Amino acid sequence: MRIVVAGGDGFCGWPTALYLSQKGHEVAIIDNLARRKWDDELRSNSLTPIATLEERVARWKELTGKTIHIYIGDLCHYDFLREVFRQTRPEAFVHFAEQRSAPYSMIDREHAVFTQVNNVVGTLNVAYAIREMAPDCHLIKLGTMGEYGTPNIDIEEGYIEIEHNGRRDILPYPKQPGSFYHLSKVHDSHNLMFICKIWGLRVTDLNQGVVYGLHTDETRLDPVLINRLDYDAVFGTALNRFLIQAAIGHDLTVYGKGGQTRGFLNITDTVRCIEISALHPADRGEFRVFNQFTEEFSVMDLAQKVRRVAEQEGISVNIAHLENPRVEKEEHYYHAKNTKLQELGLTPNLLTDDVLRDIFRTVVQYKDRVKTENVLPTVKWG
Amino acid sequence: MRIVVAGGDGFCGWPTALYLSQKGHEVAIIDNLARRKWDDELRSNSLTPIATLEERVARWKELTGKTIHIYIGDLCHYDFLREVFRQTRPEAFVHFAEQRSAPYSMIDREHAVFTQVNNVVGTLNVAYAIREMAPDCHLIKLGTMGEYGTPNIDIEEGYIEIEHNGRRDILPYPKQPGSFYHLSKVHDSHNLMFICKIWGLRVTDLNQGVVYGLHTDETRLDPVLINRLDYDAVFGTALNRFLIQAAIGHDLTVYGKGGQTRGFLNITDTVRCIEISALHPADRGEFRVFNQFTEEFSVMDLAQKVRRVAEQEGISVNIAHLENPRVEKEEHYYHAKNTKLQELGLTPNLLTDDVLRDIFRTVVQYKDRVKTENVLPTVKWG
Repeated sequence: MRIVVAGGDGFCGWPTALYLSQKGHEVAIIDNLARRKWDDELRSNSLTPIATLEERVARWKELTGKTIHIYIGDLCHYDFLREVFRQTRPEAFVHFAEQRSAPYSMIDREHAVFTQVNNVVGTLNVAYAIREMAPDCHLIKLGTMGEYGTPNIDIEEGYIEIEHNGRRDILPYPKQPGSFYHLSKVHDSHNLMFICKIWGLRVTDLNQGVVYGLHTDETRLDPVLINRLDYDAVFGTALNRFLIQAAIGHDLTVYGKGGQTRGFLNITDTVRCIEISALHPADRGEFRVFNQFTEEFSVMDLAQKVRRVAEQEGISVNIAHLENPRVEKEEHYYHAKNTKLQELGLTPNLLTDDVLRDIFRTVVQYKDRVKTENVLPTVKWG
Repeated sequence: MRIVVAGGDGFCGWPTALYLSQKGHEVAIIDNLARRKWDDELRSNSLTPIATLEERVARWKELTGKTIHIYIGDLCHYDFLREVFRQTRPEAFVHFAEQRSAPYSMIDREHAVFTQVNNVVGTLNVAYAIREMAPDCHLIKLGTMGEYGTPNIDIEEGYIEIEHNGRRDILPYPKQPGSFYHLSKVHDSHNLMFICKIWGLRVTDLNQGVVYGLHTDETRLDPVLINRLDYDAVFGTALNRFLIQAAIGHDLTVYGKGGQTRGFLNITDTVRCIEISALHPADRGEFRVFNQFTEEFSVMDLAQKVRRVAEQEGISVNIAHLENPRVEKEEHYYHAKNTKLQELGLTPNLLTDDVLRDIFRTVVQYKDRVKTENVLPTVKWG
């Protein structure tokens, strides 16, 4: 299958591009290298040293004989995007190419505006390009479980049947996102639902949970292929931050009470979910929503797991509660459905102590690269 | 009360500014004059000849002794907006300043992107300006009934209580908007709901129905104060188009079956709803939603009303069914709540034959200004 991976230089996109290439698909990457620029802006870095995108695909070619085409440019630049469609004629378009950090979107007005414009316009352009250049192409769009927020009822996959005053309808699940970034994904979802209706495009919206891990079978093949690992307070997730904190002997900093519960999945499952979606495309005119996560954990669950594994590795750490820089519920009901991808064949890789230990050992290996000034939160919601 | 009316040169904003000024409020208008530019772009016009904004406020001053300050500039220009806040110190900020035509947003990719960026960024900037410059200021934001779409259950005012799998929550009402313009208003609503939560702003979101009429007591005072009346297929509403078609002897062009049902209100009620909202502000941190309409009509209802009134005036017209340029349900359930503004004191002015006749006579008076090439639809959804 001819597949374009937009955002293919990033944490999810790079291992996805390799996995799809390994599976025999014809893969092209679009990336504007923004993630590397944001590292420069924030004086942050990937814990793992990452090669340039050109070096990465060259080494992949050496090792496997497989070619991944790269197109350096921005989805907000429509003429560029159109030209990529003309050259690649994609059957599936995987769209990871958004600003994906909640704290980054909350830095100030300019970062909020940038995040929403960049993400919404990029996605609108992709939809227009599919309509114009490849109307049968299946758009696989990365959403987030964070679109739903933390309602006091079960979270369904995209839609909910509501009975009200004696009548019934199946309606889009109400969204309560918790940052300007998460809001941008909600905006995308509404735009794409409408676009499917009026133009008959095929779209799968993957409401992805928090992704952990960094290695996949493909990225392990060679150090030049290694995936990035973000640990700073802007782009790092709670689990990554705890792992780095344990590795450098810092208290594990839980925001508030730590009862905040979310869906999680391993990067090795992300790449498989993308292929599963590509192999089972949405129908023409269908806006299909999958919740893409495999387990639910609270922040305290994660801190305790990291503490346990670190202790097994001979490192003793404390759990500290920090004043929460975010505005969010710290204790709440959380139960989300995630059966649709498993019905299509996903068998989850769960967060066992062995899996966590493997990640932790990688972290310890690179701990000298940690910039300690980036470990504590700097961006506040209020 | 010190009130800023953003979009105060437009169809709703101008009579609102006059009404609030007449009621003794200290009114300032922000406008970038975009509506006049779109007339140039589309080679369209207001049926009524409208004076410049400077002439309008000068005549108002001559007639009433009351000053309306004007600030020509764009909400997307944050430094300008900040300076207006510094000079005006508003207690209420009425936000009409968005691109408000569904067909305009559907012209092509550039118009879709423009509409969403203009509307979303303008509103984000207003929220940031309130937070920075006037945190107690009450934002009165114009949304639209079109945010809800046409669900098969009753439409509530902003929120709905849902019982699901034995648990309950009150959640944002699910939205199914029908154009890139309506989508931009849904994006605004989600952004503002979040902003109220994190910054404690006070926001009233007025989900307004289709507004008809043009005169208010204030705009009738002098021809220079007359309100604009749009009749073209891009900016004109169905009722206005039917009135103009009857006046020039054109068939009334119903899109499709004509069962499309929406909420409506008179411009004389719009201006009163704004003052009612201003006099009863939302609480700090409250995102309050009112459905601002007084009656529901189908497109066929409107066509039949216009035909009847035109006949009473001695003009005989036919009703024709055109292929629908929009993608929308042409027969559907529709019942929306609208009690909150009436509980605060709104007494509706309904669409009687007398009211319709008064509008029709104004239309006949200006019928020589009709550009007939703008009467039929040019923009398609599909």
